[in-house]
Amino acid sequence: MGDGDKGEYLVGVDLGGTKIYAGVFKPGLSCIGTARVSTKADRGADAVIERVAHCVQDAVDECDLAMKQVRGVGVGAPGAVDTETGRVIFAPNLGWEDVQFKKALEKRLDVPVFVENDCNQAMLGVYEKELGAKPQHALGIFIGTGIGGGLILDRRLHAGFNRTGGEVGHMVLEVNGPKCGCGNSGCFEALASRSAIFRRVEDAVKDGQKTLLTDMLGKDLKDMRSGDLRKAIRRGDKFVEKVVEEAALYTGIAIANLINLLSPEIVVLGGGLIEALEDEMMAIILETAKDYAFPGTMKGVDIVASKLADEAGIMGGAVLARRETK
Amino acid sequence: MGDGDKGEYLVGVDLGGTKIYAGVFKPGLSCIGTARVSTKADRGADAVIERVAHCVQDAVDECDLAMKQVRGVGVGAPGAVDTETGRVIFAPNLGWEDVQFKKALEKRLDVPVFVENDCNQAMLGVYEKELGAKPQHALGIFIGTGIGGGLILDRRLHAGFNRTGGEVGHMVLEVNGPKCGCGNSGCFEALASRSAIFRRVEDAVKDGQKTLLTDMLGKDLKDMRSGDLRKAIRRGDKFVEKVVEEAALYTGIAIANLINLLSPEIVVLGGGLIEALEDEMMAIILETAKDYAFPGTMKGVDIVASKLADEAGIMGGAVLARRETK
Repeated sequence: MGDGDKGEYLVGVDLGGTKIYAGVFKPGLSCIGTARVSTKADRGADAVIERVAHCVQDAVDECDLAMKQVRGVGVGAPGAVDTETGRVIFAPNLGWEDVQFKKALEKRLDVPVFVENDCNQAMLGVYEKELGAKPQHALGIFIGTGIGGGLILDRRLHAGFNRTGGEVGHMVLEVNGPKCGCGNSGCFEALASRSAIFRRVEDAVKDGQKTLLTDMLGKDLKDMRSGDLRKAIRRGDKFVEKVVEEAALYTGIAIANLINLLSPEIVVLGGGLIEALEDEMMAIILETAKDYAFPGTMKGVDIVASKLADEAGIMGGAVLARRETK
Repeated sequence: MGDGDKGEYLVGVDLGGTKIYAGVFKPGLSCIGTARVSTKADRGADAVIERVAHCVQDAVDECDLAMKQVRGVGVGAPGAVDTETGRVIFAPNLGWEDVQFKKALEKRLDVPVFVENDCNQAMLGVYEKELGAKPQHALGIFIGTGIGGGLILDRRLHAGFNRTGGEVGHMVLEVNGPKCGCGNSGCFEALASRSAIFRRVEDAVKDGQKTLLTDMLGKDLKDMRSGDLRKAIRRGDKFVEKVVEEAALYTGIAIANLINLLSPEIVVLGGGLIEALEDEMMAIILETAKDYAFPGTMKGVDIVASKLADEAGIMGGAVLARRETK
């Protein structure tokens, strides 16, 4: 199809617990416009779906296009998704259980909609856009407020029997470790996510630990972000450096566990924390993974940081829409 | 082919660090005879391969058959295997590195030989013989002296990029846990294998712990076996009961990690420790896995003990040989 023909463009949407992000893509996956809106999950599923539809329409309008020029929409939702029916089975951050997401969104947009788990979708974006050689087995780990994953096995996303596969964040790494939001203790997410780092910093400050972060943000560390950790480390804050190093160490161990188990060709790290602290974390992550992986398992294996940042999710949505409307 | 025709029978071999076990099977997978010989790994790869060939010939002879009536031989080796070439990449328990196992064995036996990782092969046996419904995704965990695994994903064994996948035993569950043979600390194997249990018992006895095991086996606990643990527990030894419970707890956590990650339909437990202590361990394993698995992941998932015991490995070898000579 040439430019201007009906149904050429692809839309990718990243539906998160706090914000909705939509991007319009050409078939070759170049992004030509985006839109962003808050999620307002507390208003309920119908209202959120309405906001997703709006966000898609805004992004399309931003590109001076009309909805009829969109071939398909791919949406990543933060939870377990039945990809065949586009039903969200369970998405705790949205408060959703058993929501017919695809159906409801198609009704509002009048174009085909395809739904995936958000980390799976981000991994699709990374795989298609960043991994030129299209490895047979590739793992994505996304570290931000929480930790999620996407497993590409035999060149396809692995979802498993209950379509809940790829939940790397709740791999227990330290049975007697810190409490996790999921109720267990010592999950990867409770040890190495942004929230885990922030909690460790906050607890230490309460116990009298000195850190540049309190100079920067005040005693209550209000609105602390990953970038603040980076700034403090670069200004010589040894305490913050140590906390971040610890998170990198756990990340390396988690990766070694995954390499021992699945023997991927490449592990890609993404998410806001890695984006902000790549220089501080990646070397330690690599060294630790090599140190912990079983002999023979690391040969020829790459561990890299994604360059896509926030774009991975919407890019993956476009990949999904393109694949499903072929 | 009818009885007596050339090349109807299948031979499965389990090559372990201490013993070689071979079984002859009809095409329908009924076992009609076995043979067993010690491995003598210290004599080097050539000598061991010679012993494997002998063991196969003995089993075939035991059934009043000749080698020309064998269609193929499947062998499981304790290490990383390149299944396409039948080369053993690395098998620490045998002291093997880069051994052309298939080629050498075919030369001696003059029938087609196929090589797999031992736990993968055992999982093939379990999958084919025990799992009637042939689930799409099934995990096998074999707990004995060490802990190994076999992952069936999309109805096929998952080996991965370096063909080293399925190494569940070296999943770190407790970063600061006991030292493992692999050099790391807190691996699943260092927490829940027979060796881990024995070490915990021995250490406690040295520290003055009272246990029926010393009455049964003497102060140095010579020749302690899994069955001794069972006997001690059934006679009311609370200390041994606690140590075994702890191993079951870690096993449950490891299974939850795997279910969160891969969402299988079924997890099968095998190996000598589970065989001996099924009644003592399975209820705790199940309860812990359910407790630790992420919401939604356990729905419809079975966790069961294999009934095949030692036979899983040779059975899997027969399955492998049957599949590859079809």
